[in-house]
Amino acid sequence: MPYNLYDLIIIGGGPAGVTAGIYATRQRLNTLLITKDFGGQITRKAVVIENYPGFEEISGQELIQKFKKHLRRQKIDIKEDTVREIKKTGEKFLVFTKNKSKFEAKTVIIASGADPRPLEVPGEKEFIGKGVSYCAICDGPLFKNKEVAVIGGGNSAFETAIFLSNYIKKIYVLEYGPEVKADKESQELVEKTGKVEIITNAVIKEIKGENFVKAIVYEDSKTKKEEILEVEGVFVEIGTQPVTSFAKGLVNFNEIDEIKVEFETCQTKTPGLFAVGDANIGRYKQIVTACGEGAKAALAAYEYIQKLNLK
Amino acid sequence: MPYNLYDLIIIGGGPAGVTAGIYATRQRLNTLLITKDFGGQITRKAVVIENYPGFEEISGQELIQKFKKHLRRQKIDIKEDTVREIKKTGEKFLVFTKNKSKFEAKTVIIASGADPRPLEVPGEKEFIGKGVSYCAICDGPLFKNKEVAVIGGGNSAFETAIFLSNYIKKIYVLEYGPEVKADKESQELVEKTGKVEIITNAVIKEIKGENFVKAIVYEDSKTKKEEILEVEGVFVEIGTQPVTSFAKGLVNFNEIDEIKVEFETCQTKTPGLFAVGDANIGRYKQIVTACGEGAKAALAAYEYIQKLNLK
Repeated sequence: MPYNLYDLIIIGGGPAGVTAGIYATRQRLNTLLITKDFGGQITRKAVVIENYPGFEEISGQELIQKFKKHLRRQKIDIKEDTVREIKKTGEKFLVFTKNKSKFEAKTVIIASGADPRPLEVPGEKEFIGKGVSYCAICDGPLFKNKEVAVIGGGNSAFETAIFLSNYIKKIYVLEYGPEVKADKESQELVEKTGKVEIITNAVIKEIKGENFVKAIVYEDSKTKKEEILEVEGVFVEIGTQPVTSFAKGLVNFNEIDEIKVEFETCQTKTPGLFAVGDANIGRYKQIVTACGEGAKAALAAYEYIQKLNLK
Repeated sequence: MPYNLYDLIIIGGGPAGVTAGIYATRQRLNTLLITKDFGGQITRKAVVIENYPGFEEISGQELIQKFKKHLRRQKIDIKEDTVREIKKTGEKFLVFTKNKSKFEAKTVIIASGADPRPLEVPGEKEFIGKGVSYCAICDGPLFKNKEVAVIGGGNSAFETAIFLSNYIKKIYVLEYGPEVKADKESQELVEKTGKVEIITNAVIKEIKGENFVKAIVYEDSKTKKEEILEVEGVFVEIGTQPVTSFAKGLVNFNEIDEIKVEFETCQTKTPGLFAVGDANIGRYKQIVTACGEGAKAALAAYEYIQKLNLK
């Protein structure tokens, strides 16, 4: 294979990465996109997306298909792989993958997104696939007519509860704090289902079971009393943790491993290295904000390369 | 009419304003959107949009229709009007319009976009509607089989040239600087038309004519020679000027009247007042970046109101 120095390597195939790809290839940047799958958080979460402008209602799968097709309109290299490490030598980035490939580029956009954040309580790991799930879309149907708990009080917990309410008998939503944080529309929809009971101040202590989950144990942080809920499924929806450790040394992180960027261009502290979407410190993690950042970073990468070529 | 203090007033109906509206109404903010028309820059410019993720090819009109329909899914007040002034008294914003209405709100998002920037040369004003145009979509068809000049060397100038090439005999693109700035894809498409001649270092001096435009006069900034091009149409595509003067006193501007914001939330120097899309200092003015900013500002406005209510 002849030596190939890419203009740009995009890490990740979610909305941010795909938009970066659409913009980069329109600028005729010689681009490689590395991802283990397309869609990012959308795959795992959104059943029906109602807040991506232009589509009043669209399934996550359908939107991903549209994104992928849009991306492939222009010439772009795509590798199914996971990035392990990035280094910079001189003005060149070296990107190392789990499949032991090494790629080189003038610029890199980190759009690697985030994974579900675990509860880190006894029983959680043991019962993964045996009642504990981080993906209602994938596993929800297994719990038809059963009782389940959803852990978390934000939008994704509420969307999970709404999704499950189609075929689940009873859903407990357990929120750690005194108040849920889901948006008003989601709260109204949850109420309409008539199947959801919201329990606040619930500090999860343990997940219990034998072969499968049988119950969840929590402490009421007001009464300090321990409570047990008999459920056969536990859906953990307490947020995400960014997939960013491979960039260590080249970027600054905040306390939850999100990459610090300057928001006008999404550039990190290393010139030519950008971070967009769930991987950066951005406060609002939405599909359309991720897309906007992907576009900005690609255009900024293009300008960076133009300057590099003039040197 | 009973007194109505809105949670949020959005000024502008382009992609940024519409997205802000979609997000605000999902949060059940009592929202008023003031605009003289929907679509913003899209109406005037984009014939076929190819870089809004999810739609490989969509006409500007079609995308605007989708945006409008999406916006109207939730309850939102919409007024056809133009904002003249904003004031803040205490924690309340007062918004005054050309139609002499006064509205009040806890927060305001400025999404008022930009107007075409004029050349400011002799003849320009006199021949508006008589050969001088800022909107190829509106006026292009009038010049069928004629020769025209497009002034500017960025994407919008090139897109205009491509659009006009369907039915115009010959198109001159005149760029002020030594190089055009349009993206590579647009440059390739322009070349393919076989109808476009690009002239760089062209400093426009005057537009000449009698009842209608007959010629454009420019100086070649290298040779310092004055040149005359005989054309019957002049399309001015040298960028835009933000529509922001109504916010004077509450915001800081850069040298071209764009509003300074902090990009994570798009908040201006006045708490509760946000600026998004073409109205702010953002470097990359794209449909999808405007949408992303609209979503961020709406969520930030929601948080601001929540804190206000707790006071």
